[in-house]
Amino acid sequence: MTAEIIDGKAFAAGVRARVGEEVARLKQGHGITPGLAVILVGEDPASQVYVKNKGLQTVEAGMNSYEHKLPADVSEEELSALIERLNADEAVHGILCQFPVPDHLSETEIVARIDPAKDVDGLHVENIGLLASGQQGMVPCTPLGCLMLLRDRLGDLSGKEALVIGRSNLMGKPMGQLLLRDSCTVTIAHSRTADLAAVARRADIVVAAVGRAQMVKGDWLKPGATVIDVGINRIPAPERGEGKTRLVGDCDFDSCAEVAGAITPVPGGVGPMTIACLLANTLTACCRANGLPAPEGLTA
Amino acid sequence: MTAEIIDGKAFAAGVRARVGEEVARLKQGHGITPGLAVILVGEDPASQVYVKNKGLQTVEAGMNSYEHKLPADVSEEELSALIERLNADEAVHGILCQFPVPDHLSETEIVARIDPAKDVDGLHVENIGLLASGQQGMVPCTPLGCLMLLRDRLGDLSGKEALVIGRSNLMGKPMGQLLLRDSCTVTIAHSRTADLAAVARRADIVVAAVGRAQMVKGDWLKPGATVIDVGINRIPAPERGEGKTRLVGDCDFDSCAEVAGAITPVPGGVGPMTIACLLANTLTACCRANGLPAPEGLTA
Ligand SMILES: NC(=O)c1ccc[n+]([C@@H]2O[C@H](COP(=O)([O-])OP(=O)(O)OC[C@H]3O[C@@H](n4cnc5c(N)ncnc54)[C@H](OP(=O)(O)O)[C@@H]3O)[C@@H](O)[C@H]2O)c1
Ligand SMILES: NC(=O)c1ccc[n+]([C@@H]2O[C@H](COP(=O)([O-])OP(=O)(O)OC[C@H]3O[C@@H](n4cnc5c(N)ncnc54)[C@H](OP(=O)(O)O)[C@@H]3O)[C@@H](O)[C@H]2O)c1
Repeated sequence: MTAEIIDGKAFAAGVRARVGEEVARLKQGHGITPGLAVILVGEDPASQVYVKNKGLQTVEAGMNSYEHKLPADVSEEELSALIERLNADEAVHGILCQFPVPDHLSETEIVARIDPAKDVDGLHVENIGLLASGQQGMVPCTPLGCLMLLRDRLGDLSGKEALVIGRSNLMGKPMGQLLLRDSCTVTIAHSRTADLAAVARRADIVVAAVGRAQMVKGDWLKPGATVIDVGINRIPAPERGEGKTRLVGDCDFDSCAEVAGAITPVPGGVGPMTIACLLANTLTACCRANGLPAPEGLTA
Repeated sequence: MTAEIIDGKAFAAGVRARVGEEVARLKQGHGITPGLAVILVGEDPASQVYVKNKGLQTVEAGMNSYEHKLPADVSEEELSALIERLNADEAVHGILCQFPVPDHLSETEIVARIDPAKDVDGLHVENIGLLASGQQGMVPCTPLGCLMLLRDRLGDLSGKEALVIGRSNLMGKPMGQLLLRDSCTVTIAHSRTADLAAVARRADIVVAAVGRAQMVKGDWLKPGATVIDVGINRIPAPERGEGKTRLVGDCDFDSCAEVAGAITPVPGGVGPMTIACLLANTLTACCRANGLPAPEGLTA
């Protein structure tokens, strides 16, 4: 078998286009423009790139983007005061702080200050609790993106055996909650799992969120399984020239593609879904804040 | 194989005795007496029995018990005002409202009003979020009781294959979180699970929280598995006389006991652990409220 390649880049473009249409409808019909505020503390180059991309795609979708750049030595009080202002600002429907932040600041406390209704990263303990109890809240972007790809590929997920490898708060655990909500039989595995290959072989759906290059091999998979590879790992690529590197996932793409029914590539699979879902979440938050129904298919 | 019977009644008595000792220590050393407030709305006979038992065991453990009985037609405002008073009352360290409540009241809203630090049932969305993100909070009593029994029987749970049958917010989902926190490989199954018998046969630990009398059969189990039967189901027992009934679990005890390594009976297994853990949670909440270390082994 040779797996179908799930084109996350194209799918994400579709999500962004859909968000754009809904934003246009909101503007025309209600005079409302969704707004996303992004806070960046310090000068980390990777974070600057992420924030810039988020801002560009936000504007492309017709939403307002507000960037707040703070010096690396900003005090907790100043950062908190900014978050309070953004919480109170009716033009701002989504707020996120780009992590990591410098050591003198606490990520937990930053997230705790954000109004849960504006927490478009879905990291606030209230949103985690809402997700874990099957209630409506804001859902973390990357797991939401994985769910969209799975629903698109498989339709109804009910009764499928799903394996999530990884139990981080950002990825593995919310992914498990979302799959459970969609009535999969859900297994969560992690570094203490005894025989991961055997556990993986049971699964119709494998979501790998580990951070270990090419760990999942083709002979770990049930033939025809759907594989969502969340990992982003940089490895040496001497074949591209001395000192060159390339990005790979947590799955060994070539051997997995022999066995799986469908698989996301890295790059171009899950990666582009994260920002697309951030825009979707901002739109959802804006609709809810204005008492309007959130557009279908853009949240869990 | 004939399974060892896990004596939950004796274990729960041990937990209560341990709580009693710690309460005595708190009184002597710090002049503090933990207090549990229980709210009962209406005259439901089963609820009256539960509340009475909770009160008796609270006092037996040396803690203060405060019972608040409200008429069935109490307004939401009055109930909220009571909860506010209890939230503010320094002598009250734990608050619970006995469910079900009459239809004009919302259980979700009642729980949302309770100070999360006093929410000894572990039902507040903040506590659900703390549990789901591996942070310290109040843990639901019955899953906590199951965890204590498993740790006592198996020691370190790390790497074990655990199956939770049931995904309720009260039982199945928090149970899954607790087992994941203890580094089991955790599977959650439910009514949409495709081949439950096959899924069960993989598991070293089976926690059944379904509400279907004697559903799990012995030939669903891996030999030597540890079985925790949470179900409480009343079935006809004509052998005891006309119209008589008896309580059974979600597991078919006789066939399961042939295959399992250890199993909790019903009654006398998980049941008695719930109130014992309620007392343990009240003690834990009291210690935290007073900035004292919570006694070990009485929470997750
Ligand atoms: N936009 C995106 O595409 C996106 C977003 C988020 C993350 N990611 C990528 O996804 C990957 C995971 O991210 P994360 O934030 O979830 O990482 P993380 O917080 O480091 O969590 C990794 C998880 O993998 C588990 N693990 C580690 N080694 C393992 C092994 N040998 N076998 C089985 N499980 C193992 C760990 O288990 P323990 O809990 O037992 O330690 C942990 O639960 C990373 O490569 C990250 O870059 C991509
Ligand atoms: N103190 C105690 O000992 C204590 C405390 C709490 C509960 N209990 C008992 O534990 C049992 C469960 O309580 P609960 O509150 O969790 O019940 P619940 O809210 O009714 O949840 C039952 C769960 O079982 C699942 N289920 C139903 N039929 C199934 C089937 N045929 N195969 C597999 N799964 C099935 C349901 O799946 P879906 O989600 O797909 O519907 C649901 O997730 C009850 O008997 C209750 O009395 C005892």
